[in-house]
Amino acid sequence: MKKIGIVDTTFARYDMASSASDELYSTGTGFTVVRYTVPGIKDIPVACKILFEDYECDIIMALGMPGPMPVDKMSAQIASTGIMEVQLEEKRHIIEVFVHEDEAKDDKELAWLSDKRTREHAINTYNLLFDPEKLTANAGTGLRQGFDDKGPAMDSNGYSHRH
Amino acid sequence: MKKIGIVDTTFARYDMASSASDELYSTGTGFTVVRYTVPGIKDIPVACKILFEDYECDIIMALGMPGPMPVDKMSAQIASTGIMEVQLEEKRHIIEVFVHEDEAKDDKELAWLSDKRTREHAINTYNLLFDPEKLTANAGTGLRQGFDDKGPAMDSNGYSHRH
Amino acid sequence: MKKIGIVDTTFARYDMASSASDELYSTGTGFTVVRYTVPGIKDIPVACKILFEDYECDIIMALGMPGPMPVDKMSAQIASTGIMEVQLEEKRHIIEVFVHEDEAKDDKELAWLSDKRTREHAINTYNLLFDPEKLTANAGTGLRQGFDDKGPAMDSNGYSHRH
Amino acid sequence: MKKIGIVDTTFARYDMASSASDELYSTGTGFTVVRYTVPGIKDIPVACKILFEDYECDIIMALGMPGPMPVDKMSAQIASTGIMEVQLEEKRHIIEVFVHEDEAKDDKELAWLSDKRTREHAINTYNLLFDPEKLTANAGTGLRQGFDDKGPAMDSNGYSHRH
Amino acid sequence: MKKIGIVDTTFARYDMASSASDELYSTGTGFTVVRYTVPGIKDIPVACKILFEDYECDIIMALGMPGPMPVDKMSAQIASTGIMEVQLEEKRHIIEVFVHEDEAKDDKELAWLSDKRTREHAINTYNLLFDPEKLTANAGTGLRQGFDDKGPAMDSNGYSHRH
Repeated sequence: MKKIGIVDTTFARYDMASSASDELYSTGTGFTVVRYTVPGIKDIPVACKILFEDYECDIIMALGMPGPMPVDKMSAQIASTGIMEVQLEEKRHIIEVFVHEDEAKDDKELAWLSDKRTREHAINTYNLLFDPEKLTANAGTGLRQGFDDKGPAMDSNGYSHRH
Repeated sequence: MKKIGIVDTTFARYDMASSASDELYSTGTGFTVVRYTVPGIKDIPVACKILFEDYECDIIMALGMPGPMPVDKMSAQIASTGIMEVQLEEKRHIIEVFVHEDEAKDDKELAWLSDKRTREHAINTYNLLFDPEKLTANAGTGLRQGFDDKGPAMDSNGYSHRH
Repeated sequence: MKKIGIVDTTFARYDMASSASDELYSTGTGFTVVRYTVPGIKDIPVACKILFEDYECDIIMALGMPGPMPVDKMSAQIASTGIMEVQLEEKRHIIEVFVHEDEAKDDKELAWLSDKRTREHAINTYNLLFDPEKLTANAGTGLRQGFDDKGPAMDSNGYSHRH
Repeated sequence: MKKIGIVDTTFARYDMASSASDELYSTGTGFTVVRYTVPGIKDIPVACKILFEDYECDIIMALGMPGPMPVDKMSAQIASTGIMEVQLEEKRHIIEVFVHEDEAKDDKELAWLSDKRTREHAINTYNLLFDPEKLTANAGTGLRQGFDDKGPAMDSNGYSHRH
Repeated sequence: MKKIGIVDTTFARYDMASSASDELYSTGTGFTVVRYTVPGIKDIPVACKILFEDYECDIIMALGMPGPMPVDKMSAQIASTGIMEVQLEEKRHIIEVFVHEDEAKDDKELAWLSDKRTREHAINTYNLLFDPEKLTANAGTGLRQGFDDKGPAMDSNGYSHRH
């Protein structure tokens, strides 16, 4: 039985953790979920470390919603740097799902985007843990989480360079 | 008996440490407070490390007031990066309470904001230590420390996506 | 027999991993290739660490395509910082091949650039592993991967300062 | 007998180390000073580490004067990040005294500012080592090193929120 | 016999390594030089680590020429951060000699600047290793590598504050 950690925040304006666990349970079995809620994104990295070391998680989804101000962007950068560091110390993946509040034009789109991006990354998380071949099958195809996929870049003959 | 560390600075223009300990003692019991004052925000991280290792603190509130100049913003970023690093080394939370001097329109608002944000983060600090379920109950609800809460983003039916 | 790791992403819009392994196999022998696909560039560093430690790779090519938005640039910076950290922990080279989506004027050029830069860095990778003298022979000559080489800067007599 | 390290640079346009040791010796006794001069600010962090580990310094003053160009600002950031890292590794304070060349309107002010900021931080350094209570007594009072102190922010009754 | 490492790149448009070793050999004796060429500046830090640990270098000159684009500036920052990290891990100096391509108005000046800055830093390197007193003698005098020295800032009487 694998363990998937979910870290979320009270700062976020959408309950991304519910989208994540709902999608994970729809995708497959063989895992349990451990959830840890912190106040803001800069509190996420140490929560990830605790989930890896004290709760023996195999992979973690880090769910955050950085605000629109320059100081929020700086917080996001520091949080991401910490998330990176924890991954390298633990040699395990943390899938960072950050939805920047200013990515959406209004609250409705923000809710939609938060739900969609979280769900698509839940599938990435599941695949990294149970089915990494699926990721390789989609390498270089321009997948995006949330807004539309961009698709592969085409050559002058209208074919992608997939070999 | 738990130990809560408080690190503050002589650079800050408000005595945030008094707001912090006042709010902590109003919120609950079962802890003592250890205070460490440094000159500026870049001196905070090593003080946190000393409080964790030599004074056996379980959690720390890091109270700082970055100035308005670009060089101050850079100092805040470096201080935050150090605070992140200490958390990961110690596997314990540091609640960073930074009030940027240019967030407030005048001295009166700066004093108000410093007091309010510090008190709201004191409650977060208490909850992380003694009552983490309270944070999970508020996940994704758009809580802010200082200015007004933003609340959850609503869907087109006027309901939030809380599951 | 040496092992060359290739890490690529589903986010990228070109199958850079195929260009890489195609060029590596055209350049020489004496190695095998191990491939690891992750969702986005910030997932690359821990994949590199896994390839070094669990798959015993001697060198790694890290293939990514950062998007055009400021948040993508920040992701690229964090990914690069993590790649740097893994190199220093492992004392082995990771050749970072990032093609920024906004470096190309259209999809056709993006495909061309991705292929060309990856191939030229595949040769660098091969040389670092098997033939480092070739790099020294080209030191200071203004080589570029992707767009045209810039060549050495000349002195007033039209000669380069190569001693 | 305590040891205070002073690291300075040949790049700086003012002999800050002399201001530092002069002020330290005026403030108290019970310490010796060890000085280490490097070319530029990015050479400071490793010098600090050497002073801590090989010369057994208890605290260090890091004296630097970043230039006015963007590349100089980046160097200052990297130097500060390294200084932070050394503090955390050694669990000892480094008081960073950086005077940015463009903080002063002319050479005369630059010399005055360099001397004044260094002297005020020399007193902070002394207090951190011998008299930390003095720092706590001044917490939240808006002290600045170099230009005028800002003082505490006042509430609407004209009183500061000092509790 | 001491060992001085030189790391340079094929990306640079000037053979800075030849200027470096030429100047080192003109300055003194008692050392040998080990050279390691990498493709670009982000490959420099791990090369430094290899030179320190596997080739037992006592000090290293890191020679790089960042390009003029924003992405190049970011690469320079990441390279410098890695160089900082290696210094702190090894407790030995790395003298970073970066010539930004856009510091020079044309190729002729770029060649001149690359040669001059490298040579002046070669002397710093030599002095750090063999004659650190010379650096202290020049502390706070506004030395620059490449373009003209700025000299010390003067006080209102026209004297510098050198004590």
